[in-house]
Amino acid sequence: MRFVVKKIELNDKPIAILNYRDALQYGIPQSRRIRVLNNSRVVYAEVLVSKTIVDQGYIGLNEPALNLLRVREGDTVIVKIPPNPRSIHVIHKRLHGERLSEDEIRTIVEDVVSGAIGEAEIAAFLSSQIPIPLSNEELTELIKAMAYASEVVEFDEPVYDEHSIGGVPGNSKVALLAVPTVASTGILIPKTSSRAITSPAGTADTMEVLAPVDLSPEEIKKIAKKVRGTLVWGGGLNIAIADDIFIEVERKIMIDPLSQMIASILSKKLAMSVNNLVIDIPVGKGAKVQDYATADKIAGLFINQCGRLGITVRVALTFGGEPIGRTVGPALEAREALKTLIEGKGSHSLVDKAVNIAGLVLELAGKADRGQGEKLARELLVKRRSYSKMKEIIEAQGGNPNIKPDDIPVGDKTYTITSPLEGAVTHIDNVAISLITRAAGAPFDKGAGIYFHVKLGYRVRKGDPLFTIHASTEKKLDDALKLVERYKPIMVEGMLIKALP
Amino acid sequence: MRFVVKKIELNDKPIAILNYRDALQYGIPQSRRIRVLNNSRVVYAEVLVSKTIVDQGYIGLNEPALNLLRVREGDTVIVKIPPNPRSIHVIHKRLHGERLSEDEIRTIVEDVVSGAIGEAEIAAFLSSQIPIPLSNEELTELIKAMAYASEVVEFDEPVYDEHSIGGVPGNSKVALLAVPTVASTGILIPKTSSRAITSPAGTADTMEVLAPVDLSPEEIKKIAKKVRGTLVWGGGLNIAIADDIFIEVERKIMIDPLSQMIASILSKKLAMSVNNLVIDIPVGKGAKVQDYATADKIAGLFINQCGRLGITVRVALTFGGEPIGRTVGPALEAREALKTLIEGKGSHSLVDKAVNIAGLVLELAGKADRGQGEKLARELLVKRRSYSKMKEIIEAQGGNPNIKPDDIPVGDKTYTITSPLEGAVTHIDNVAISLITRAAGAPFDKGAGIYFHVKLGYRVRKGDPLFTIHASTEKKLDDALKLVERYKPIMVEGMLIKALP
Repeated sequence: MRFVVKKIELNDKPIAILNYRDALQYGIPQSRRIRVLNNSRVVYAEVLVSKTIVDQGYIGLNEPALNLLRVREGDTVIVKIPPNPRSIHVIHKRLHGERLSEDEIRTIVEDVVSGAIGEAEIAAFLSSQIPIPLSNEELTELIKAMAYASEVVEFDEPVYDEHSIGGVPGNSKVALLAVPTVASTGILIPKTSSRAITSPAGTADTMEVLAPVDLSPEEIKKIAKKVRGTLVWGGGLNIAIADDIFIEVERKIMIDPLSQMIASILSKKLAMSVNNLVIDIPVGKGAKVQDYATADKIAGLFINQCGRLGITVRVALTFGGEPIGRTVGPALEAREALKTLIEGKGSHSLVDKAVNIAGLVLELAGKADRGQGEKLARELLVKRRSYSKMKEIIEAQGGNPNIKPDDIPVGDKTYTITSPLEGAVTHIDNVAISLITRAAGAPFDKGAGIYFHVKLGYRVRKGDPLFTIHASTEKKLDDALKLVERYKPIMVEGMLIKALP
Repeated sequence: MRFVVKKIELNDKPIAILNYRDALQYGIPQSRRIRVLNNSRVVYAEVLVSKTIVDQGYIGLNEPALNLLRVREGDTVIVKIPPNPRSIHVIHKRLHGERLSEDEIRTIVEDVVSGAIGEAEIAAFLSSQIPIPLSNEELTELIKAMAYASEVVEFDEPVYDEHSIGGVPGNSKVALLAVPTVASTGILIPKTSSRAITSPAGTADTMEVLAPVDLSPEEIKKIAKKVRGTLVWGGGLNIAIADDIFIEVERKIMIDPLSQMIASILSKKLAMSVNNLVIDIPVGKGAKVQDYATADKIAGLFINQCGRLGITVRVALTFGGEPIGRTVGPALEAREALKTLIEGKGSHSLVDKAVNIAGLVLELAGKADRGQGEKLARELLVKRRSYSKMKEIIEAQGGNPNIKPDDIPVGDKTYTITSPLEGAVTHIDNVAISLITRAAGAPFDKGAGIYFHVKLGYRVRKGDPLFTIHASTEKKLDDALKLVERYKPIMVEGMLIKALP
């Protein structure tokens, strides 16, 4: 079937709109997946149907589809109803309890990437992993297939990296200390990171306050070679084509199989040619991982898979029971990181975590003996070696290396929550803090965030400030305060719990 | 968030388009499910995002969404980002191997019907049924929840029905003989049926050649009361709201759990207040069910569930190894049914099946002793009682009761396939016949279809006609003939298989 292209401005993933008469005549029900071809270029899209937006004989395509097909308005494309993708049968096989071969796993990933299967089929694959967890062999093949479906960024020397599985607010700034500390010793650490999905700030969001993070693979390689480290956004690199699609469906059905999380992280490391890796697993109330038994299990899976993939790995279990440092939100976190680098000291929870993570990388690289990495990292931070390197990285990525913490604008609508009684801070709720910060506007509004006047265990008097919320508008501040009211994210308890008669 | 409504003509299920700036500002990622409210009226829709189709502050809604919300262009609606639907957690529970309660199953069905969950979540639920089949208790609750999510059509006397699980071409006309035969004895049989989904003709498609089938519940009740039988389309009745949605996802991921098929059929029967039911399971090569062991298992599930639901049931296993009767396609099948009714006789495979099914209903109703129903049904057919009743039904539904077979137009572009050799017809391929008939234009083009000059076991000479394809255009005829070439749907084998030297 041949159709003339009409350009439609809608959505940022390929879509196709057909006239309802054509759809009826060719037996293409609405939401059927079709294959649109221009010579050897192919795009899959779910069909939308309209009586008025496109006339008979025309197909509405949006810019992503036009670009993939390299066609323009007025060109002719061919539409085919594709046969059932092979991966559907593979997914059925898995649901029936059979193990998949390398080839079958690759088929699924290829169909995910090409768009031959959509979110319903992907949901079926993800769902299969709950009652029937991926075997070690299946997981290795999934990681490889996801990595090699991406564009691999190659380096001609050993590549180091550190990665946190996340889930703790305030964590996005740790890499802003750890990466320059590692890079200052000459180790190659081209870190890519994500933007926030459900958290108030991803490392890419926070670094973006200081310098551009959307760089090409060529730029990253050039910068990494020159200054030894980068802090860039991985999303622009095509190193996670399959992963991005999996994650979208995972979020929708709220299924996040452990195996899929490991595949997500390690496939991107493989695509960045990482061969030495430190994994951070924050453990604690309100973190992704709440207990040490689970953390040990996850650590074991990482170690097993890294062994199979030829990646040397160290896993750090870190305290994740409260936010890291004093700040949450891109601009506030960028300020805190910069201040810590400039002064060579800062919040204990931030500095300790950063030098521990950096220290493990230094140990992996043989820059320090086992157990001595932290000490070396702390020295580099205190002696401002980390700061000097950070200035180089900021400049190399196109930012202003001389930026000072106070140059960074933060939301000027503020409200400070105070303690209702005298006592000790016994709990800071990670999940509530994330929700409140997002309600205040983060991560899209970089200036939105929270500053903590207290941390776990601090003694406060009635009326002492607990935390200050920053927002850009009164409305957003108000939205955040409503959630404060609902969640009461910081708990202060008096020493006297109860007085009996 | 308040938005002003703009009408968009796109798709026939609710959609919502937001300006990309609004989407960004309110943190609504593309494809996120939102809740649109007008007072107490609610619609769920996946968000599409555009820079040009709607301006900031506006929301594009299509007619289905406008109708559900009872709003017009220029009205204001409220948009909310719904919390995670409860059924997501219920589905997770099931994937982790736990059994669901009545309340939990109902939650899933309610969220399916309201649109609170979309196809990814539904795919997860359907997928869970493969490794962890629904228990009898879960299936009963699913059937009930699906039925009571619909509008129940109530009658003040016992309701009878017959239903084929389908999969054999030519079967759509059986009900056109069986229903009037049953109704002619005064039994109430308000049959609703579906249009073809993947087959070349559903009973509703075929009956529509003779009379309108899209009637309201009130009309059906009135007609059923008066003439005792109906042959209408169930799709207009809201008796399968949940089922329609499940089926769409099942087709997409090609997962059709047995439990879901039973739930689909019995929930509709429950919604039509059926309390006496005959289930037809065609068995044979190329049918849905290929062997008797499977057929027995399915029959057992129907009997078990009907018992739990208070429906008296008889299950018929019938020969499904070739198409039923001489015709496939709506108009040709309507012609054959009408001719058989008028003459009181016709193709053995059609007449035998119809009187057997009708006979079982007569036995259920006590109109005939066990084993004697078929005889009574055949008598009713031969004595034209079935035909008289069919005329009443046609007239009551708004058709012309005096219509004759030759009045029914069929596709005038024809081609007859002849036997390439002398021998016996050893196989007629159901699946290929369905595909060829659909390629010729059925079910949308009612006149498209196939007429069989031979049936299984017929002796033919070289050049004898095997079957004739009818289509409305040369193009469609050609499409069908290409598939004939590919599938060779009728096999003729000589008696001499091989001559050795």
